[in-house]
Amino acid sequence: MSGNNIIFGRKPVFEAMEADSEIRRIFISQNLRGDIVFKIKKAAKERGIPVKTASPERIDQLCGKQNSQGIVAELEEITFASVNDVILNAQKMEFPLVLLLDSIQDTHNLGAILRSAECTGVGGVIITAHFSAPVNDTVIKTSAGAVSHLKIATVKNLVSVIRTLKDEGFWIAGADMSGEPYNTKDYKMPLALVMGNEEKGLRRLVKDNCDFLLGIPMKGSIDSLNVSVSAGVLLFEILRQREK
Amino acid sequence: MSGNNIIFGRKPVFEAMEADSEIRRIFISQNLRGDIVFKIKKAAKERGIPVKTASPERIDQLCGKQNSQGIVAELEEITFASVNDVILNAQKMEFPLVLLLDSIQDTHNLGAILRSAECTGVGGVIITAHFSAPVNDTVIKTSAGAVSHLKIATVKNLVSVIRTLKDEGFWIAGADMSGEPYNTKDYKMPLALVMGNEEKGLRRLVKDNCDFLLGIPMKGSIDSLNVSVSAGVLLFEILRQREK
Repeated sequence: MSGNNIIFGRKPVFEAMEADSEIRRIFISQNLRGDIVFKIKKAAKERGIPVKTASPERIDQLCGKQNSQGIVAELEEITFASVNDVILNAQKMEFPLVLLLDSIQDTHNLGAILRSAECTGVGGVIITAHFSAPVNDTVIKTSAGAVSHLKIATVKNLVSVIRTLKDEGFWIAGADMSGEPYNTKDYKMPLALVMGNEEKGLRRLVKDNCDFLLGIPMKGSIDSLNVSVSAGVLLFEILRQREK
Repeated sequence: MSGNNIIFGRKPVFEAMEADSEIRRIFISQNLRGDIVFKIKKAAKERGIPVKTASPERIDQLCGKQNSQGIVAELEEITFASVNDVILNAQKMEFPLVLLLDSIQDTHNLGAILRSAECTGVGGVIITAHFSAPVNDTVIKTSAGAVSHLKIATVKNLVSVIRTLKDEGFWIAGADMSGEPYNTKDYKMPLALVMGNEEKGLRRLVKDNCDFLLGIPMKGSIDSLNVSVSAGVLLFEILRQREK
């Protein structure tokens, strides 16, 4: 029932509103009358979503002639940046910082990481296109809106991006349990932090291309953190050190 | 299809295995024959779950006479501790540390927080019984097994626990955006860290009973982190400071 940045049909649109999806605006057909119009307007108003009346033809056009039941919601669009945009944006920082996400597969993790990235003032995020969670509605929601404030690029070949970053003078730090304790490093340099997959960690070739690896020393019996927690701990330590 | 620490029926048990649920053991009825027995044993073996054959009467007894289809899985049991156990366990630490969770509602957040708590060597966790996510299968899974290594108590009245902790010489630190920067404090003291609800933060009465509040300074446009990330950042800073 949902397509490319569009949700249509009464139930899906109501459900999207109830789930606090990032809806840019709602179109209702001028043919639609009665209680349902009132209900849509009320629910949208409570959430600050603009509602526009449109001709049945416009509604058809928006949802590609599928049965819209006279109601279409347009989701906030995610505009991806280029790798170059991300690098240029990071280079505006006193100490540039880019976050690379290699195959993060859980949408909640991806959203929470993007939220932490925005909160720590990261210059941009580069996500692998394959084997990663899509930057979808759940991610946007979990990111608490961070997605629209961040420069995010998706790439097929992360190793080639790492090489480009090195050419630009970035140091590449991979998050890995075997790494040096994260709290003994100096981060006052152009830095790209690489986080790996939830289960498998960094891929071999990515790891081999890192300048150094960062580990988080632990005290308990289990030996790994949720990846969004690791990313948060590392990003806030980088921020803390740089601001000292 | 699932009850108290028990899952029964072919599909639910297979699904639980596929979801890597924490299954202690599986019982199959001695009346069950053929391919299905082979399939169950194979799937269980791949996951290291013991399979026992039992009489139909035993199977009936395990699942309360409901239609088990001859297969019952017993989930790992969560044994809760008392508040006193948590405090005594924390007091074995050089600097006691207890984590209080006030109305954490998302199971993924709760699981990730418990995982971080175990990884930072927290003496125990106290969770509010009402308005909190239940410590269920998702929590156990997200916690990566931390639940079975931690002393966890659930309580109805968090404020009364805070008073008990104060009597025992603990300082009460609440996580709150308005608080002092978390990285300027000395944590070499008996400490109880309180994390509040995802949306609403700490309840008024809980906040009023804190000795001090800890904030995490941020740099971006959005102003709050995922609660499991905040908890991780605070716990690892406490660990870092204490180990210095």
